[in-house]
Amino acid sequence: MSTTRLLVLGADAAGMSAAHQAIRAAGTNLAVTALEATGDTSYSACGIPYWVAGDVSSSDSLVARTAEQHRKAGIDLRLGATATGIDRRARTVTYRDAGGEQVLGYDELVIATGASAMVPDWAVDPDTGQRYAGVAPVKTLTDGAVWLDLLAGLPGGGGRVVVAGGGYIGVEMAEAARRRGHTVTVITRTRVMSSLDPDMSARIEKGLHEAGVRVLTGSPVVRLDVADGRVRGAYTVDGERHPADLVVLALGVTPNTAFLDLAELPSGPGGGLRPEPDGSLADGIWAAGDCCETRHRLTGTWTYLPLGTHANKQGRIVGTNLVTPGVLRFGGVLGTAITRFAVGTTYLEIARTGLSEHEAAAAGIEVQSLITEGSTASGYMSEADPITVKLLAARSDRRLMGAQIVGGRGAGKRIDAAATALWHGATVDDLAWSDLSYAPPFATAWEIVQVAARRLADRL
Amino acid sequence: MSTTRLLVLGADAAGMSAAHQAIRAAGTNLAVTALEATGDTSYSACGIPYWVAGDVSSSDSLVARTAEQHRKAGIDLRLGATATGIDRRARTVTYRDAGGEQVLGYDELVIATGASAMVPDWAVDPDTGQRYAGVAPVKTLTDGAVWLDLLAGLPGGGGRVVVAGGGYIGVEMAEAARRRGHTVTVITRTRVMSSLDPDMSARIEKGLHEAGVRVLTGSPVVRLDVADGRVRGAYTVDGERHPADLVVLALGVTPNTAFLDLAELPSGPGGGLRPEPDGSLADGIWAAGDCCETRHRLTGTWTYLPLGTHANKQGRIVGTNLVTPGVLRFGGVLGTAITRFAVGTTYLEIARTGLSEHEAAAAGIEVQSLITEGSTASGYMSEADPITVKLLAARSDRRLMGAQIVGGRGAGKRIDAAATALWHGATVDDLAWSDLSYAPPFATAWEIVQVAARRLADRL
Repeated sequence: MSTTRLLVLGADAAGMSAAHQAIRAAGTNLAVTALEATGDTSYSACGIPYWVAGDVSSSDSLVARTAEQHRKAGIDLRLGATATGIDRRARTVTYRDAGGEQVLGYDELVIATGASAMVPDWAVDPDTGQRYAGVAPVKTLTDGAVWLDLLAGLPGGGGRVVVAGGGYIGVEMAEAARRRGHTVTVITRTRVMSSLDPDMSARIEKGLHEAGVRVLTGSPVVRLDVADGRVRGAYTVDGERHPADLVVLALGVTPNTAFLDLAELPSGPGGGLRPEPDGSLADGIWAAGDCCETRHRLTGTWTYLPLGTHANKQGRIVGTNLVTPGVLRFGGVLGTAITRFAVGTTYLEIARTGLSEHEAAAAGIEVQSLITEGSTASGYMSEADPITVKLLAARSDRRLMGAQIVGGRGAGKRIDAAATALWHGATVDDLAWSDLSYAPPFATAWEIVQVAARRLADRL
Repeated sequence: MSTTRLLVLGADAAGMSAAHQAIRAAGTNLAVTALEATGDTSYSACGIPYWVAGDVSSSDSLVARTAEQHRKAGIDLRLGATATGIDRRARTVTYRDAGGEQVLGYDELVIATGASAMVPDWAVDPDTGQRYAGVAPVKTLTDGAVWLDLLAGLPGGGGRVVVAGGGYIGVEMAEAARRRGHTVTVITRTRVMSSLDPDMSARIEKGLHEAGVRVLTGSPVVRLDVADGRVRGAYTVDGERHPADLVVLALGVTPNTAFLDLAELPSGPGGGLRPEPDGSLADGIWAAGDCCETRHRLTGTWTYLPLGTHANKQGRIVGTNLVTPGVLRFGGVLGTAITRFAVGTTYLEIARTGLSEHEAAAAGIEVQSLITEGSTASGYMSEADPITVKLLAARSDRRLMGAQIVGGRGAGKRIDAAATALWHGATVDDLAWSDLSYAPPFATAWEIVQVAARRLADRL
């Protein structure tokens, strides 16, 4: 049996899951080369805010598998190697590293180049092409190290940090900076955690306020006040100036696909690749992870939801199928997500799955929604924390369409029961009457997610 | 429209849910009478061990709705009234209260008489017919008060408590007595938490040991050592004597149906009633709660799983359907359950759903099972606690058949995702690849329940 040359672009979750899974499945008949543009492999980007906050002692902890471990597994891993183009006919990839431009042939190619943090024009000095001093995103391990330095350079508790963007990374970095004692202002185009509905965002904003974080909604940063190349303030669209020693760029990410001829590959308007459910993109080419869009399981539409857990799954699917075609299929995403905001006595768990009201409307699905307030445990237990559950259901067929949760300890992971119900096309009645767990330290006799489902069912 | 006379036997979760739901649905055309044998209504029996432990300050906290609240809602509630028989032809119930024997007519009858703690012969003085001093079950609020007194009568930290039975109440009472500083020995016929498989019970027993609780398995209490009517020790079947100042009877419960002519009503060998999915038992008679068996959703067989959350749901279904027939159906049970063992630095969450290996074998379902060890959060987070997940799947069709979890904080409620998957007939592949929530404080990038499903899928 001849040896298959597998070339993997990107050595983070998706690419390395694909590589290791392929090695496990194919054995010695596979020669794997991986090109990684940075110097890091298989790290948890989601963990960086906790490293910045001081919860994680070292970036080593965030690395699931080191370059050495990948190499020990038989992968020819080349760091600092940036892919610059693909010749599909010749089945070659050109890349640039310290030695200049190189060309590599492949039999199977996995594109797993991930995504990069959005850096808006206003964050960059037009003269140097570099970001202004004190302004940085939060995506790579290098970014994390930069943030540790930046925060260490501030006077203890005296710094003013502006967070541009109120999504997951924005909220987590607000937590990190606030816990380090700095003054924090979150400035968002729409609102905090806009993947949840406005009535749920309001609850999160209230929590941020309680923890001393200023929140400005509906008013993005459009310009910086800079002196000597260093940020001194951020201007919102209404012209208001907010003093800033540091500005966090938490404005989302874009897929790293600029090196590809996107006209020739299935891709979306934002540059995300659109692989088939088996992970194949084109003849001999596979794609997985943050450089890809995914199908939303409820609407069937392509959506961009870069997340480590999807990257891991997609990589494993690609690694399996490129050895034995058709074994696994990616079943789509529901947009399930969770985070936490914990500063001092403020502790909020935040989670969502399925469609928001806005997303349902965009998909032409008429939904009924309802907010239910309750408790994470029986009221007489010290574990009892408030929890708010919002559920959405389709008016036409009573099917659950989405769930959003904001609450205390134990609130967030409840989203998984709703996500599992969504995955199986459950109605709110199914959810209301199913057999979920109850004991006083963990739930009320009617589990709150089921109360929410029952109350919504009554309104349909 | 004439007034319907609704008579409810039992004023706890099932009966009062039925009564209030019926009142909401029927309005003024309903005259509701409720007979309750004890002096308490709508209380959380599950909360009693936490009251005994000192976590809950007063039994008032355990009462969801007082007698006064029920009466305010229009229910003619009669406490200390024990039903003694039913004349189905005449549609009357006879009951006994302080005033002697009474007869009441009904148009619709709800039997929700609950269950009583098992009190074995060895716990009772044959001369007096009373339990020996120092020996008591844990079912009613009166039992809870008795336990507070019994424990208060022991020397601080010096008492020897034997817990007969290693199920939920047994483990919870072991926690309560240990936290109050006493020496605790749990003595079980089979093993601790035998609704889980032996390999999972072993993990729980290890936790109990670590917290200083002695555990004897496979050796039930068969006899007490008694002096002056007061317990001094418990003998196991092998003749070993275990010193005991107090003995907890945690041996399960039996349905309170002895007053019925069970030959004439659908019922099981243990005396549990067997209502239809709509809650109806016979013409004009409904049944709900701990006096009933339920259909297991996976096997279709009748099973006895008395639990407050089922009682609440069944009561609501009966209350709805007796006003408007056929609106709601009880979809069966999966045997989902959760508890906790927390003493000092030992903290274990314990949960299960679906079939155990033993139950699957009894149902003739050939299963493959697998234990997976992991973490409740990303390894670099302080929230990361060990978690063990055991999953069972049918060999024939890969469908998930059961899940068992033992682990630290955040472990237990993960059972709800598995229970929801089970409810919808999911395969382990469905569970492995669905979209569950991930963020470092809450999960590993591959959620551990999904890792467990994926690993089991690989073995099928």
